[in-house]
Amino acid sequence: MNPQENQYNILEEDCFNRHILDIVVNKWTSLIFYSLSPGPQRYNQLKKLIEGISQTMLTGTLRKLERNGLVHREIYPVIPPKVEYSLTPLGETLIPIFEQIYKWTGQYMTEIELAQKQYDEQN
Amino acid sequence: MNPQENQYNILEEDCFNRHILDIVVNKWTSLIFYSLSPGPQRYNQLKKLIEGISQTMLTGTLRKLERNGLVHREIYPVIPPKVEYSLTPLGETLIPIFEQIYKWTGQYMTEIELAQKQYDEQN
Repeated sequence: MNPQENQYNILEEDCFNRHILDIVVNKWTSLIFYSLSPGPQRYNQLKKLIEGISQTMLTGTLRKLERNGLVHREIYPVIPPKVEYSLTPLGETLIPIFEQIYKWTGQYMTEIELAQKQYDEQN
Repeated sequence: MNPQENQYNILEEDCFNRHILDIVVNKWTSLIFYSLSPGPQRYNQLKKLIEGISQTMLTGTLRKLERNGLVHREIYPVIPPKVEYSLTPLGETLIPIFEQIYKWTGQYMTEIELAQKQYDEQN
C-alpha cells in the first residue's frame, strides 16, 4: 500500500474516498450485505436477521447505502405498502471482498482467541 | 454467501466471529493498517498521519488490535521511552483485503458520486 500511487489520500479528513471507506468498512454495512447477498429482504426481515441492530442504526445505514448507490429500495404499490431492499449491481461488486473478510474471521479465529488470552494474562 | 456453510453465524450478537468483524470492519482499523503497512510507526506519528483521529480513538483502537494479535507494541528501553507499533504476521494477512477495499473506493468513486447526486436531487 503505497500512498504515492494514489491521486487521493484517505488519511486526509476531507478525502472523498475516506468518506466511502467510512460507509463500506463498517460492521453494520457488512452485516446488511451478508443478509442481502442471498436476495432482497424487507425492512422487518433485516431487523430480525441482524441481531442487536437498533431501528435507528438499520434505517440510517440503509439510507447511507441507498444514497451511495449500494442498496436499492423498492416500494411496491400495495396495501399495506411493501418495501424491499436489495443490493445494486454496484453493491454486488463488494460481495467478493466481504466474503474474504467473513472467511478471514473463520480462518484465524483460533489465533485471535489465543492472542486475546495471552494479552489478558499479561495486562 | 450461504450462512449454512458456516458453523458460526455472524448475524448472532454473541458470535465470536462477529466480534472479530467488529474490530476488522472498522474505519479506524483500516486507516491504522494503511498507515502501518509501509512499516512501524510511533504513536505520535500515527496520530499525525491519520487526520481527525482523537487520542481516545487511536489509543482504544490500537489496544483492541494489540489484544487481538493484529498489531504489536514494542517498547524500547530508552529515555524518553520509545514505543513503536507494527503489524504482526497475523495483521499482515489482512493487508491484501484492505488493499482491495482501498482500490474499490478509487475504482467506483465516479459511480458513487453520481448516485449521491441523484439521491440528493430526489430526496
